[in-house]
Amino acid sequence: MMNNGITAPRGFLASGVPCGLKKNGNKDLAMVVSENDAIAVGIFTKNVVKGHSLMWTRDKIKSGLARAMVINSGCANACLGERGDNDAADMAIYASSLIKCEPEKVMLGSTGVIGFPLEMDKIKRGIKEAFDSLSNQGGLLAAEAIMTTDTFSKEASKSFEIAGKTITIGGMCKGSGMIHPNMATMISLITTDAAISGEMLDKALRSVADKSFNRVSVDGDTSVCDQFVIMANGQAGNTLISSDNADYEVFVSALLDVSISLSKMLAKDGEGATKLIEIRAEGCKDVESAHLILNAIAKSPLVKTAFFGQDANWGRIFTAAGYSGADFDPDLVDIYLGDLMVCKNGTGLKFDEDIASDILKKDEIIVTIDFKSGKINDRIWTCDFSFDYVKINGSYRS
Amino acid sequence: MMNNGITAPRGFLASGVPCGLKKNGNKDLAMVVSENDAIAVGIFTKNVVKGHSLMWTRDKIKSGLARAMVINSGCANACLGERGDNDAADMAIYASSLIKCEPEKVMLGSTGVIGFPLEMDKIKRGIKEAFDSLSNQGGLLAAEAIMTTDTFSKEASKSFEIAGKTITIGGMCKGSGMIHPNMATMISLITTDAAISGEMLDKALRSVADKSFNRVSVDGDTSVCDQFVIMANGQAGNTLISSDNADYEVFVSALLDVSISLSKMLAKDGEGATKLIEIRAEGCKDVESAHLILNAIAKSPLVKTAFFGQDANWGRIFTAAGYSGADFDPDLVDIYLGDLMVCKNGTGLKFDEDIASDILKKDEIIVTIDFKSGKINDRIWTCDFSFDYVKINGSYRS
Repeated sequence: MMNNGITAPRGFLASGVPCGLKKNGNKDLAMVVSENDAIAVGIFTKNVVKGHSLMWTRDKIKSGLARAMVINSGCANACLGERGDNDAADMAIYASSLIKCEPEKVMLGSTGVIGFPLEMDKIKRGIKEAFDSLSNQGGLLAAEAIMTTDTFSKEASKSFEIAGKTITIGGMCKGSGMIHPNMATMISLITTDAAISGEMLDKALRSVADKSFNRVSVDGDTSVCDQFVIMANGQAGNTLISSDNADYEVFVSALLDVSISLSKMLAKDGEGATKLIEIRAEGCKDVESAHLILNAIAKSPLVKTAFFGQDANWGRIFTAAGYSGADFDPDLVDIYLGDLMVCKNGTGLKFDEDIASDILKKDEIIVTIDFKSGKINDRIWTCDFSFDYVKINGSYRS
Repeated sequence: MMNNGITAPRGFLASGVPCGLKKNGNKDLAMVVSENDAIAVGIFTKNVVKGHSLMWTRDKIKSGLARAMVINSGCANACLGERGDNDAADMAIYASSLIKCEPEKVMLGSTGVIGFPLEMDKIKRGIKEAFDSLSNQGGLLAAEAIMTTDTFSKEASKSFEIAGKTITIGGMCKGSGMIHPNMATMISLITTDAAISGEMLDKALRSVADKSFNRVSVDGDTSVCDQFVIMANGQAGNTLISSDNADYEVFVSALLDVSISLSKMLAKDGEGATKLIEIRAEGCKDVESAHLILNAIAKSPLVKTAFFGQDANWGRIFTAAGYSGADFDPDLVDIYLGDLMVCKNGTGLKFDEDIASDILKKDEIIVTIDFKSGKINDRIWTCDFSFDYVKINGSYRS
């Protein structure tokens, strides 16, 4: 089995088992354990409504140390009042009793339908079984167990050297619908054997999130369970990274590679998606304008259905930029589909529809909008909007 | 023929003809003429990108007087540089030569695909034909001629008395996709024979827009051609309404009725829609919170596909409120589908799925979210998101 995800770094064990929350009998409970206490940092949904499992992790991670993470799919454990909080605590306490650590060192994630309580008998049976099957090859099973409407599991890893020590970063994530860059990506966990201080790991996490997970939009919806967590257990034996030095730069660069790989998988696996679309806003006046523009375009159902229909309707892209709230001079704007310029200085060009059609038929499309009014470039990954999006989401609960 | 739209008030003539812009041969050019100069006011898209015909109207309406409006469907006359401005001017000049008025008194609207120039020979032939067929019964033909993906024409009117004088307000609008409350509604024209000052008419327009056209969302996209225009020709012979008096209140109330009727038609005819959904945000802390919450819910593809699927997935409604940017205490929130309470104090209730299903099967659904944190109530009209939305918008240009 490929070991390309969270068990790629030294000292991490993982597993994924079916505990019966998913009606179809698929795996729905994942466990990740570090052999020793790991430095842990995370960012969490900005949604005012927050899932109970997520709130447990957010509150406990403040200590800066974690041994494990337990994630279930099939139920969000959200909007359940005190019962939801109690169930989350029970999950952590039970897992910690097996792992033999403090409950506060067990992070939690839950994803699925909102408003239905966790079936705790199943969860506990699952935790026991997952614990018994922990393995340093188990990353893929864990990645599979956290899937909801995902059509494929999402893993990435990268190894690199710092002063003769090999460091590995591995990650997994899940998410297909309810994804938008207002914090992370449903659930993403990255593990590393790097020795790095909590402060620097937190800095790395925030810097990378804004260039990866916070640049993915499937449908403009952000969930109540979004979290992006990193655990670093130090087993690589490198000199502790505790300042913004060259080692830190090498680490951040590798972390960004892993995070972008995972982010693009999220966009590509957007619910019902047939295409991965990278939208580039170039020559923007400022960072905020670029952000507004990219968000508006990536969220527009009209833009996304046109991509599904392979229709070179660039007017919708321009329109979305126009209502984004960003200020720009429309008479300066150039728009490209792939390499084909379709609009110059705000005016539509006559272009060869056959060439456009060839570009739009591809699985991956790059759209560039050049505002020619500044030096800021940014990008976002999204997908098209298909009949299957409607089908998947018209009957999610049933 | 019903005279229930823009020719219901005295002194307005209208017509609608096919001039060949629409490939299917349907009517695509509408003309409305007042027998005398009318007070005219309008509000226009906030999109940074603006159509050339719309910009003509916005610039010329500043004089406060208009005699006529010409609207074509089948082509947006947008993103065409100088040519687009020239074509708009030509339309107005040609129409004014027939009507025998200043070109500045001819307002324009164009709606359709962006980036393709108007075929001016067809437009002029259409203007001539429309002028020759003007009639005080022609409102419906005009309403039909401005349709794009609309499945039915949209008209409303209301008559009422002020001090023994009968006043009539009539309106038409078009719009089905690319609709969101960031200014008006694609194109809406309201006519009235009331005598009212420009200042008070403008005040009435703005007050009414925020409770009607600015409370409709089909897909979160706002077009470059959105405008809402009112013409008042004074033929009712009432005492001029020139201050915020009782007559004004009666007038505004009737204008709101007409505008809400038209707005609900827009939501009901949302592209691919199978349902009209009224979302009520109650007990909000302030106006801005209510606005953010309603917009987020009405725009959410996950909420809208769930309604299409008749799935009582209230968690998505709560989630959308949560990421709207509005601040509220989730533990106070109650949610109702129709009369059925599904969430109380932020916690999901066990409810009868059969009752929920009966509510969700209906053509018109009211969803109420009570935040219990203030006195502000607001509402928005939207629709569900169906396979047909994707179908219509995947191939709009072709």
